[in-house]
Amino acid sequence: MNYIEGIDSPQDLRRLPRSALGQVASELRQLILETINRNGGHLGAAMGAVELAIAVHYVFDSPYDRIIWDVGHQAHAHKILTGRRQRFHTIKRDGGLSGFLKRSESPHDIFGAGHASTSLSAATGIREALRLKDASNKVVALIGDGGLTGGMAFEALNHAGALKRDLIVILNDNGMSISPNVGALSEWFSRKLTGESMTRWRRRIRQLLGALNDDAVRMVEQLLDRTKQMVATPGVLFEGLGFEYIGPIDGHDLETLIDTLTDARRLNRAVVVHCKTRKGEGIPGADHDLERYHGVQPYELQAPPHSEATESFQTSRTRQRITLSSEATSFTSVFGQTICQLAAADPRVVAITAAMTQGTGLVEFSRRFPERFYDVGIAEAHAVTFAAGMACEGFRPVCAIYSTFLQRAFDQVIHDVCLQELPVTFCIDRAGLVGADGPTHHGVFDICYLRTIPNLALIAPRSLDQLPSLLAAAIDRGEPVAIRWPKGAPAATLPRAAELPWGQAEVLFESGPELLLIASGTMVPEALAAANQLSERIGVTLIDPRFLKPLDADTLCPRLARASAIVTVEEGVLAGGLGSAVLELCETNDLRPRVRRLGIADTFVDHGDIARLRGRFGLNRQGIVAAYESIAAEGQIFSIR
Amino acid sequence: MNYIEGIDSPQDLRRLPRSALGQVASELRQLILETINRNGGHLGAAMGAVELAIAVHYVFDSPYDRIIWDVGHQAHAHKILTGRRQRFHTIKRDGGLSGFLKRSESPHDIFGAGHASTSLSAATGIREALRLKDASNKVVALIGDGGLTGGMAFEALNHAGALKRDLIVILNDNGMSISPNVGALSEWFSRKLTGESMTRWRRRIRQLLGALNDDAVRMVEQLLDRTKQMVATPGVLFEGLGFEYIGPIDGHDLETLIDTLTDARRLNRAVVVHCKTRKGEGIPGADHDLERYHGVQPYELQAPPHSEATESFQTSRTRQRITLSSEATSFTSVFGQTICQLAAADPRVVAITAAMTQGTGLVEFSRRFPERFYDVGIAEAHAVTFAAGMACEGFRPVCAIYSTFLQRAFDQVIHDVCLQELPVTFCIDRAGLVGADGPTHHGVFDICYLRTIPNLALIAPRSLDQLPSLLAAAIDRGEPVAIRWPKGAPAATLPRAAELPWGQAEVLFESGPELLLIASGTMVPEALAAANQLSERIGVTLIDPRFLKPLDADTLCPRLARASAIVTVEEGVLAGGLGSAVLELCETNDLRPRVRRLGIADTFVDHGDIARLRGRFGLNRQGIVAAYESIAAEGQIFSIR
Repeated sequence: MNYIEGIDSPQDLRRLPRSALGQVASELRQLILETINRNGGHLGAAMGAVELAIAVHYVFDSPYDRIIWDVGHQAHAHKILTGRRQRFHTIKRDGGLSGFLKRSESPHDIFGAGHASTSLSAATGIREALRLKDASNKVVALIGDGGLTGGMAFEALNHAGALKRDLIVILNDNGMSISPNVGALSEWFSRKLTGESMTRWRRRIRQLLGALNDDAVRMVEQLLDRTKQMVATPGVLFEGLGFEYIGPIDGHDLETLIDTLTDARRLNRAVVVHCKTRKGEGIPGADHDLERYHGVQPYELQAPPHSEATESFQTSRTRQRITLSSEATSFTSVFGQTICQLAAADPRVVAITAAMTQGTGLVEFSRRFPERFYDVGIAEAHAVTFAAGMACEGFRPVCAIYSTFLQRAFDQVIHDVCLQELPVTFCIDRAGLVGADGPTHHGVFDICYLRTIPNLALIAPRSLDQLPSLLAAAIDRGEPVAIRWPKGAPAATLPRAAELPWGQAEVLFESGPELLLIASGTMVPEALAAANQLSERIGVTLIDPRFLKPLDADTLCPRLARASAIVTVEEGVLAGGLGSAVLELCETNDLRPRVRRLGIADTFVDHGDIARLRGRFGLNRQGIVAAYESIAAEGQIFSIR
Repeated sequence: MNYIEGIDSPQDLRRLPRSALGQVASELRQLILETINRNGGHLGAAMGAVELAIAVHYVFDSPYDRIIWDVGHQAHAHKILTGRRQRFHTIKRDGGLSGFLKRSESPHDIFGAGHASTSLSAATGIREALRLKDASNKVVALIGDGGLTGGMAFEALNHAGALKRDLIVILNDNGMSISPNVGALSEWFSRKLTGESMTRWRRRIRQLLGALNDDAVRMVEQLLDRTKQMVATPGVLFEGLGFEYIGPIDGHDLETLIDTLTDARRLNRAVVVHCKTRKGEGIPGADHDLERYHGVQPYELQAPPHSEATESFQTSRTRQRITLSSEATSFTSVFGQTICQLAAADPRVVAITAAMTQGTGLVEFSRRFPERFYDVGIAEAHAVTFAAGMACEGFRPVCAIYSTFLQRAFDQVIHDVCLQELPVTFCIDRAGLVGADGPTHHGVFDICYLRTIPNLALIAPRSLDQLPSLLAAAIDRGEPVAIRWPKGAPAATLPRAAELPWGQAEVLFESGPELLLIASGTMVPEALAAANQLSERIGVTLIDPRFLKPLDADTLCPRLARASAIVTVEEGVLAGGLGSAVLELCETNDLRPRVRRLGIADTFVDHGDIARLRGRFGLNRQGIVAAYESIAAEGQIFSIR
């Protein structure tokens, strides 16, 4: 480390001679590689955007000039260059720097971003605001080619192009979003039409016209220049939408980058600078397994291999036997194995995701059933309605999307799937707190926003062995169903799940009626521990509702009626969540028990260690015991054994 | 009526000679015009797509071929031609035909649609499903140029273009969405570059090269043909995305339409047929006021002019006096007048909508403050994040979107506005049941989906006179705030609202503690009538919480504690709504009162008369009284006076 130790702000960077910037890039790469390998995170995108970050801070004057990064995991170099070098080792760690952009973290983080495709909308708004203030600050948005497949990026281009303001869009084109892009846009970008075919034409015409007529040659040349500019893909997309287009240029060539951005800066109009980059640039061997480098698990967090041998489950309705290998050690991998076996037996099963092939466990499916696999790019809204379309024709689409990203298709779940009662199964990974990715990625709203939608069943398996039969039954059912599960695996080994009818809650523990615990998903192991502890003093019943909607009134109501105290436990926001559903069930059945709801309070939750975050909201054994004791402290009614 | 009386299915249409189709179009126009003028509805779009409907049903074999309409209010002629002529007079009426596409209504309605921009995603899914089934059915999607500005349409084009399947997209380009399009896409479409400039170039080159060299001339001509095809806007957008492009053609010329669609049908690939149409074609004088013709109020439903004279309100925090004219007879018009006066006094105020300028009452604002007004097209997600961007720079954006459409920006409200605590004010029109527009348009989910978001205040004014001061205070506050109001005006005149501090609930009636009514928005007049009726027998308290989030615990809790029975009343879904918020408040404060929640059950609500729909869920005086009586019937506790 030489140069970057002297860089505590972009001004320090700009004081360096251009000749030093290559070394700065190397030092940034080294720091990012070391840190992400230790802390986990999005390595490929971060490594690919190092020169972009240097060039943009060399040419523009942040934060006076507004530099808006899309998504944010390409912005690690930006973080280091903007005064966060010394805290960079804390990135994604408990209490440390966020892995994404965060306004409260730095004045250089102009707009927060964890979800893709937002930067152009935000930049357009900022541009307009500055114009209304007659301010001369420049506005620069950096967006990946993956982010550009998101519909809202197109909405923003359409709007910004019409406004025709001074706005610089840097397209960081690494030829892939999380999964390789499959869209036409990406093919368009990679078409080799730009230079060669035009050059060939030009040469042939020159040969033909040669010495004949100088005016004619000049005329044709002008025509070619003009048409080339328009025909040159992908420039034509942006030019058609009102942007000037420059590129493509090599996004790792600092000289070219700086010269081009300096030109773009002077244009004072809407311009797209198209930069070709290589994701994972500088990681030895990254080319071979690019998707793996999107997110890297820190070494120390890697779960030990599960010791259990191959297991098999008979799904309840189809009576199909699902066999899980010893690698099925997380909900994601169990899903991945199960969906393959269901697809092998049922040709109606198709899988759809939105740039989350690996994250949702669909890599094997995509290889075994390429004809029935659809990665639609970063386009959740389209993914859901595309699934609805396939369902219209008798297929049983399984739509695998993270909880936080399904928020982007909320209307489509309502309007296109549930209103029409189409048999789409939503497989919602990363439901609950996600830890290091923080507030933009916690999947804590889905219980509430899905529970409000008519015709939709919402299920949460608590253990890996529940998932195969629930998934099989959901697909079989021919109705809209959502299944939510967390990242990883249950924290503790649970008793083997019973095979229960659709919709039925499961009584996991019943030593008496005084305390009724209702816990879902990840909270079941904690509630079981609390039940074991408390049952030494009182009679405890623990119910896993399995179905968050509709709640199983037959199992719950008699116990709600008998219990002296009820504690509900969920890994999701309290407003409108499972606890509220239990209160609603009580109201509907005219029961008025003493209830304590445990869940996530009405706040955005920072990134950090999941166990600590859960503890903050009482979402563990201790919190459940404490909730019971706060009820017991009120005295009355209670019959302590 | 001559021909169409013999048309009970598309087969009947196809039996007619081409020469008869012009007459069919006239008859369809007459029937649509008469019916919509009587029943209300979307006249302009319906009239503009008459020839498209005829041509598509003449060339394709519905429902074997899948014809998918976007939005649906362009599909009136389609409805008449597909066996619904005799019921067409019931359209949008209670128990009658839906004004939109509806799968359960006809096998010819392949995919339901009330929200725009969904057809290409659905068609792509259907296309893929048919391919997997090796079926030879054709798939045709019809989308407007307005619908194309929606990001998900672009997501679908990007996906479908890459799939390269047999899919026919008919672009119904009438040069406007609900408001005239402002996007670059629309400018692109209307650019006159297509033919003329190329023809000019060609003529000049021909002159220059003339007799010189035949080969050279042919060469240049070929080059021009090839480049013209690519440069011809807007074809280049679609060609770049992998579609064949045909057009633009006259969408009212049946001969051309039928010939072109017949050709497109034979292509067996992804093709866009660009049809220029005129919205409102066949309505005398429609050209002059096109936006008005988007939705027509039936004559008999028009509210009588409000008799009250000009009123003025002093807003609570800014002390700015808002003066409303006698035309301010609905929440929409009060909003429109208020926002203009606030903007006149505060240069930070900007207004943003997504193709709902007239519907949200922003026409006057758009005229008086064109520099601070943004209609971004059918692009709700972008609208919200664009607002967030402006808020970053110190502006106070007011984002006016219908309740049902804000669902499309759910993630942006969470991720871009509330997480970053940016001062965006959401003005949510059409909250609650909307009547004739039915299940795709009822604004019944917003209380639940907004209440779950941290940092967001949610307000519902019950009367017109409350809106100005609430809006002023919301904008002044510098935080995310959502204000929801229904279409139209309160059903009854209410006592003048008190000027209360931010966050405070209002006690509207208090004759005793036995029954506590908590009612919001449209339900306040009904609750007041019920309170008046019941107070003859028991002590009744009526509270309008005003703030659905956060609830005013100081006002509510003591009364919740004292009340023998509580009835909550809201025009929204029960799961996670206001009633649940009250249950949550009771739980948090360890209160266990007897509660009945009135609201919309867990079902999609059909279109129909609002009063009848409300009655179905007990959302009126009678329902509230009945809810009380069902509690009283349980006997116990109650102290009847």
